[in-house]
Amino acid sequence: MDFDLVIKNGLIATASDVISGQDIGVRDGKIACIGFGLPTTSSTQIIDAEGGFITPGGVDSHVHLEQWNTPTGDTWITGSRSALCGGTTTVIAFASQNKHHESVLPIVDDYAALAKGRSSCDYALHLIMTNPTPKIVNEELPFLVKEHGITSVKLYMTYDPMKLRDREILDIMVATRRLGMTTMIHAENHDMIELIIETLEARGQTDPYYHAVSRPQLAEAEATYRAIALSEMMDTPILLVHVSSETAAKHIRDAQTRLLPIYGETCPQYLYLLSERLKGENFEGAKCVCSPPLREKPADLDSMWTSIANGTFTTFSSDHAASKFGVEGGKRLGLINGRPYFKKIPNGLPGLETRLPLLYKGVQEGRITIHDYVRVSASNPAKLYGLHTKGAIQPGLDADFIIWYPEGKMEPFELTNAMLHHDIDYSPFEGMTFTNWPRYTILRGQTVWSRDGEGFMAKQDQGRYVKRGTSALGGPRNVFVNEWRPPV
Amino acid sequence: MDFDLVIKNGLIATASDVISGQDIGVRDGKIACIGFGLPTTSSTQIIDAEGGFITPGGVDSHVHLEQWNTPTGDTWITGSRSALCGGTTTVIAFASQNKHHESVLPIVDDYAALAKGRSSCDYALHLIMTNPTPKIVNEELPFLVKEHGITSVKLYMTYDPMKLRDREILDIMVATRRLGMTTMIHAENHDMIELIIETLEARGQTDPYYHAVSRPQLAEAEATYRAIALSEMMDTPILLVHVSSETAAKHIRDAQTRLLPIYGETCPQYLYLLSERLKGENFEGAKCVCSPPLREKPADLDSMWTSIANGTFTTFSSDHAASKFGVEGGKRLGLINGRPYFKKIPNGLPGLETRLPLLYKGVQEGRITIHDYVRVSASNPAKLYGLHTKGAIQPGLDADFIIWYPEGKMEPFELTNAMLHHDIDYSPFEGMTFTNWPRYTILRGQTVWSRDGEGFMAKQDQGRYVKRGTSALGGPRNVFVNEWRPPV
Amino acid sequence: MDFDLVIKNGLIATASDVISGQDIGVRDGKIACIGFGLPTTSSTQIIDAEGGFITPGGVDSHVHLEQWNTPTGDTWITGSRSALCGGTTTVIAFASQNKHHESVLPIVDDYAALAKGRSSCDYALHLIMTNPTPKIVNEELPFLVKEHGITSVKLYMTYDPMKLRDREILDIMVATRRLGMTTMIHAENHDMIELIIETLEARGQTDPYYHAVSRPQLAEAEATYRAIALSEMMDTPILLVHVSSETAAKHIRDAQTRLLPIYGETCPQYLYLLSERLKGENFEGAKCVCSPPLREKPADLDSMWTSIANGTFTTFSSDHAASKFGVEGGKRLGLINGRPYFKKIPNGLPGLETRLPLLYKGVQEGRITIHDYVRVSASNPAKLYGLHTKGAIQPGLDADFIIWYPEGKMEPFELTNAMLHHDIDYSPFEGMTFTNWPRYTILRGQTVWSRDGEGFMAKQDQGRYVKRGTSALGGPRNVFVNEWRPPV
Amino acid sequence: MDFDLVIKNGLIATASDVISGQDIGVRDGKIACIGFGLPTTSSTQIIDAEGGFITPGGVDSHVHLEQWNTPTGDTWITGSRSALCGGTTTVIAFASQNKHHESVLPIVDDYAALAKGRSSCDYALHLIMTNPTPKIVNEELPFLVKEHGITSVKLYMTYDPMKLRDREILDIMVATRRLGMTTMIHAENHDMIELIIETLEARGQTDPYYHAVSRPQLAEAEATYRAIALSEMMDTPILLVHVSSETAAKHIRDAQTRLLPIYGETCPQYLYLLSERLKGENFEGAKCVCSPPLREKPADLDSMWTSIANGTFTTFSSDHAASKFGVEGGKRLGLINGRPYFKKIPNGLPGLETRLPLLYKGVQEGRITIHDYVRVSASNPAKLYGLHTKGAIQPGLDADFIIWYPEGKMEPFELTNAMLHHDIDYSPFEGMTFTNWPRYTILRGQTVWSRDGEGFMAKQDQGRYVKRGTSALGGPRNVFVNEWRPPV
Repeated sequence: MDFDLVIKNGLIATASDVISGQDIGVRDGKIACIGFGLPTTSSTQIIDAEGGFITPGGVDSHVHLEQWNTPTGDTWITGSRSALCGGTTTVIAFASQNKHHESVLPIVDDYAALAKGRSSCDYALHLIMTNPTPKIVNEELPFLVKEHGITSVKLYMTYDPMKLRDREILDIMVATRRLGMTTMIHAENHDMIELIIETLEARGQTDPYYHAVSRPQLAEAEATYRAIALSEMMDTPILLVHVSSETAAKHIRDAQTRLLPIYGETCPQYLYLLSERLKGENFEGAKCVCSPPLREKPADLDSMWTSIANGTFTTFSSDHAASKFGVEGGKRLGLINGRPYFKKIPNGLPGLETRLPLLYKGVQEGRITIHDYVRVSASNPAKLYGLHTKGAIQPGLDADFIIWYPEGKMEPFELTNAMLHHDIDYSPFEGMTFTNWPRYTILRGQTVWSRDGEGFMAKQDQGRYVKRGTSALGGPRNVFVNEWRPPV
Repeated sequence: MDFDLVIKNGLIATASDVISGQDIGVRDGKIACIGFGLPTTSSTQIIDAEGGFITPGGVDSHVHLEQWNTPTGDTWITGSRSALCGGTTTVIAFASQNKHHESVLPIVDDYAALAKGRSSCDYALHLIMTNPTPKIVNEELPFLVKEHGITSVKLYMTYDPMKLRDREILDIMVATRRLGMTTMIHAENHDMIELIIETLEARGQTDPYYHAVSRPQLAEAEATYRAIALSEMMDTPILLVHVSSETAAKHIRDAQTRLLPIYGETCPQYLYLLSERLKGENFEGAKCVCSPPLREKPADLDSMWTSIANGTFTTFSSDHAASKFGVEGGKRLGLINGRPYFKKIPNGLPGLETRLPLLYKGVQEGRITIHDYVRVSASNPAKLYGLHTKGAIQPGLDADFIIWYPEGKMEPFELTNAMLHHDIDYSPFEGMTFTNWPRYTILRGQTVWSRDGEGFMAKQDQGRYVKRGTSALGGPRNVFVNEWRPPV
Repeated sequence: MDFDLVIKNGLIATASDVISGQDIGVRDGKIACIGFGLPTTSSTQIIDAEGGFITPGGVDSHVHLEQWNTPTGDTWITGSRSALCGGTTTVIAFASQNKHHESVLPIVDDYAALAKGRSSCDYALHLIMTNPTPKIVNEELPFLVKEHGITSVKLYMTYDPMKLRDREILDIMVATRRLGMTTMIHAENHDMIELIIETLEARGQTDPYYHAVSRPQLAEAEATYRAIALSEMMDTPILLVHVSSETAAKHIRDAQTRLLPIYGETCPQYLYLLSERLKGENFEGAKCVCSPPLREKPADLDSMWTSIANGTFTTFSSDHAASKFGVEGGKRLGLINGRPYFKKIPNGLPGLETRLPLLYKGVQEGRITIHDYVRVSASNPAKLYGLHTKGAIQPGLDADFIIWYPEGKMEPFELTNAMLHHDIDYSPFEGMTFTNWPRYTILRGQTVWSRDGEGFMAKQDQGRYVKRGTSALGGPRNVFVNEWRPPV
Repeated sequence: MDFDLVIKNGLIATASDVISGQDIGVRDGKIACIGFGLPTTSSTQIIDAEGGFITPGGVDSHVHLEQWNTPTGDTWITGSRSALCGGTTTVIAFASQNKHHESVLPIVDDYAALAKGRSSCDYALHLIMTNPTPKIVNEELPFLVKEHGITSVKLYMTYDPMKLRDREILDIMVATRRLGMTTMIHAENHDMIELIIETLEARGQTDPYYHAVSRPQLAEAEATYRAIALSEMMDTPILLVHVSSETAAKHIRDAQTRLLPIYGETCPQYLYLLSERLKGENFEGAKCVCSPPLREKPADLDSMWTSIANGTFTTFSSDHAASKFGVEGGKRLGLINGRPYFKKIPNGLPGLETRLPLLYKGVQEGRITIHDYVRVSASNPAKLYGLHTKGAIQPGLDADFIIWYPEGKMEPFELTNAMLHHDIDYSPFEGMTFTNWPRYTILRGQTVWSRDGEGFMAKQDQGRYVKRGTSALGGPRNVFVNEWRPPV
């Protein structure tokens, strides 16, 4: 019963319970024991949580780092640093196929190479598929599952370079179902959006705000319903990524009511930001361009909080896809000859570091419970994506923690971008007041962030690649429409 | 106050009222007067309805005649004859573009020429669009509306030779909205069906019954939801043709609740026939292949009746698309080397003549009211498609009527195909017992069918082409999502 | 073919059609004929509608006249006058049982005597039941149906002197089902309201505005759901009176979707007035106290318009229940020692004369169609309540009409109370601008109101009592829950 | 780090996680530690779970023991014994007010005295209120909360001796809201049921089966909707007890979607038994009389399983309310002069001992997860009712466990009543096959049931009374309709 680290006096939060008055004993990077009055020796590091919450190290399951489409954004070095300073100990980023790639194996190797030795937090990879050739689907996917532990794919129903037809999605589902993979879907009706964009362009309506106009809630609602129907037909689990609108959330909940294996995700921007942010002067609106876009009304934000609280949303991720606002001596992407052109603005927001403080704020304000917080920020992402050593505070798992300040202990502050550790020149959340923030982040037993102490303390190569297993959340029901069963 | 024809003693049924004890006076093919004790002269023809219902001459707004895909089916001569003998005085058939046609004007001329002088009932034409080139959409459609009175188009979301992408549908809607045209949509998710068919074929499951398996209700529900979303975005009226399943009907009703201009149609086969009919021996199942397919359960039939009675369905049509069962000396289409192959069976059923008796049966059995009957069989088809002289019994309109037997007056009979006047060698409704049937059919004041008398009495060229106007049912609400307005 | 009256050049509107270019011929107070170019003689009165709409004389099926609870309100003389000047040719008022009445027969006689010879419009009576003794239910109701043509009862779920328990409602339904009567229900949860009122009173919150606070939408939604459940169990038709909130309307529509015999009614105040009206200075808010109360938001008004347009509401009535605002030398009811006390304010608004112009405004503004207008203002009330000679423009029925101005013909005006013909000292609709109004009202062939001419022209005893038959709208489905059938 | 007991090799299941490869260390009746390789001494008892699940000791939060209405049923001695042998370590039973009781304090004392020293399992008490006098509500409830830890009340909307009017429920809610109590509601519409019963009796339909006929799903759906509306108005948490029908469950889920504090409970009988069981010969149907009654169709059972799996149901209890089938020498209650009379049959089933094995069966069959099992059988009942030392396996809580057989280890058996430890002469679940059962039950560190060993091992007075705190599940939202706030 020797421990390398004992954490005392915390409120240990899990997705279902809060444990108080107990210590956490850590040995060899693992949680060895939870119990009362654990013994310590002179070599035991002791952290006093002083009554603050201890939550699992955050799992951010939707992060874009060093993808081809974010040329001016974070690297693995800056991104993983930012993650740890915001309490996230594991990120799942994307290896992205381009349409012309005939094989995804080299791509996965390339993306893995980018992260290797350059991530201070633990990490894993999803595969983005944009061209599901039979060879990739039938031969390479099984290999990736088995050899790389890549057990999820992400598909797009929109964006010209990425979008798949329904049939392509179905063909992939035949394989993911068989392999026990989770299918992530970006659901927006491409054709609706395309027509609106063309119309807006023809009318010269190209300011950043028209980005929001061009992607109406209806486009998300339609594609979400369709994705669920495809999943229902194939009886295969899907996660709808970055859900932003009430009708889409309603479709997900209706499906869950019927026990279909449908999962949903939302992001901080859909809890806090409205489309009026796209109207800022001096092209400031460009800082808030993401897809789906920010929505119109406070009620839209409320409905996203509600969908976390009532269990509709399974995971909560940053969708970190950051580009610098100012590049190359003041030039701004999306500004062409001084004229804004929303279609050219890089799509995506920085959010790795602010994700968890923003969600925790909802706990403080009574919008969600601490259990909801743990569930969507760590436990469910770990379960859904097969990170079997992550996401919960229980003996045997990795000793990844956030220790929060006891309420009232931290000096409230207004966020400035300078406080953050990413390599982006703005945050859409600047100016917000925070009354709590991760005080310590602990990765496999090592303190990697101490807000009151040395700040960021991880080594550049401290992160490890996590080979993932299959999902621990519900899978197919083995029920097909019309009793039809496809060949296995 | 001279009349060519006076009809006495009928129960005159409209979509909202029943008028009793009044006469109908007809002059010059028009309803001249409705009133009590109309004067007659020696030259006035008098028909005594003996207390039976008088309903408007039926308008069958979904009929396929002499289209390229029904080579062995009815001609205009046999089809229009069959229509009149079943109480239908006006049919709207299709002029059908093939994908390679660069212009639809010659096609419309060709189809119009086929009907001219060969239709004993009045008729009009819809346009099927399968390749909406800018020229067709922007130049030809306005011409067709103005010069030909073709004020509706039909689009397909399925079938390889016909299906349109969402964007094509939207592009067409931009035009149909501007022109006040009604857009008809065949809503089934093509990609779902394609995958199932390929799978079934790979497994050798090609009997007629697998046709029903290959087109699940889910495929209809998804496409219906999507079509409604496309319509909502464009704020343009659509009619979902031949709706067969409860979830699809629910989507339509939900849209109507929100006052979207969404209309629905169903057909006799979805009120009476189940998919078990596809299982008959000796390839008999081939007689009941249609799309959407017959559904599984009696509850499916009930839900279609319910959707007529609660107002969800706007129109009731035959979708007459008949092919002979036995062709060329016993050969059967869909049977290849003696082996059934459901994908090759001609798609569609005969139904022009049985449509109205089958619907009237629902009145007799208390499933719907006589007002529902009139509404979906005549008044609404006439209103929706701009047949402004048709569809109702009111002074000023064409004197098109059905006079039914007073209840109890007609000898009940079992339907045989020999009783029908089409040129098809079977009816899927053979064997059903009828206790009423159109006793007289009157077209513009002329008795063209007298069941107890001379039978069919129309001349081959008695029918007239009806140039249609714009819809009298609700149109756009002038509300676009996100306050976006397209260029007009 | 002699006519007493011929109306020319109107747009004849029915619940389903518009007939143009035809004349209406009237003889002996009945519509004798509708047709083109009807012959006239020197003794024929001719009215030229000049292209304006001709709609059926209004049927106001929910009117309180000379009831015990409106001591300072209209008499039959002033009320019926007001009705005709607003286009209503038939009213159904209430004979009201008090809890202590052991028999309702004398009550009906008393109320009938009040109207006899003092109503210039046609009229009928509903029975309000507040104490359904077995004798009344089993012996008197059949008598009233047969001898008096009273084929409807109204029940209250709230108000201490009127409210019935669920069991009492069920007991009445056993009888009304057997007798084919329509059951009208005022649905608000009494106990909820009682608690709120007591709480408000204890806190001194007794201003008129608190009337709205005391009767939340939730109370209406709950009671509506319950009433529908009671109806479903008994399989007997009900009409929910004066529906004011969206959730209640949704319950009604859901029931209609399932073909339950559930009907709904709304009133002008729920289309135009908001609860802020209860906040006026100088006790002005007292003018707008009604139950259910005016609701909070413009969206509440919209949802009522929507529920007319989508067919949820069956009838549209005034719920005229007027009391003078100032009585006995400036005294105001509801003001006790100068202090407002909402519970003592007479409940109800004047509205007999403004009902139809307010509804027609919705036609002008594109919120509803002219068919919706006819349906809810005349046709359906006549059908639902068995007024078989009323409610439609068709040969054989009473010649009751409104002739409206052709659009653009009438000088727009702002309504003042002085323009109205009731004996009430205010209208909640004063100040509204109207661009149309009944130009002529015709009762059984007699012009009784000519806005441009002599004004009100009816004799005090011109109205007749209408003995009603059974409902022409859908009745029981003969389906009981759990296949249980009650004794008949 | 000395332990009295160490349990090894189990799969520790919580409501959100499964912990494997870890030991549980118990000291002084509490869980002291969970961790890898806990040290043991010669005085440490060691239990090897052999890979079976370890779940929290069951909390049965709905149990009737020695209530006035179950004269021939279990005593605390036999009931608590039966509980432990079925894995339940804590029961919450009822202290029941009769309508004539002016104070509930003596009643609580009486019921507490019955249990004291006679319960081998831990126990707590709910209060049934049937006559909420102001004194009881305002003075006694606070006392019971503070001094007795009775933090929940149960109310009935049906049964003549118990039922409350809506107003009484609301009055109680004013108090329970203020005191943080949970309100349990038996929701069936009394008046509907009363009418049906009277009708059935008048027709001589009194066999046990008519019990099911007399309480239709509609009665439950209506009352559930009403109870939710009352709760919504008061913004106070309620639990709907023993939900048995799909529409009721739908109402609960809809409310949860909106984040209302609505909780639901179901029972084993609604998962496994159908109303056909009420038709048995020789009055066997009387064994299955409970309220709400068993429902009609397998789909009804499915919908209850679904509502556990999708999270609608919060708790799962036995509603143990057992009476002997044969009493006093063969006499049967409910049989009067040899004639069955369903209204006189004791209402309720035995189920304390079979509750958990029946639920665990659902885990084995893939209908629910082990987390669902833990959540509804232990964690949620403990949280909802303020049993803060119960319901979860976490350090600091009571060491109450069930250890299940590893799958495949136990010999399957058919249940007979002789195997059970209650004092009832039948079980409705006799004949069912079980493939798992609690192998050990451990209460505060003591093994009280060992199926393979000594069987039942607890002392008669081993159970302790648990003084409860307030609910740990969500409470009021502090939102009132219409912004109305009641006095606090």
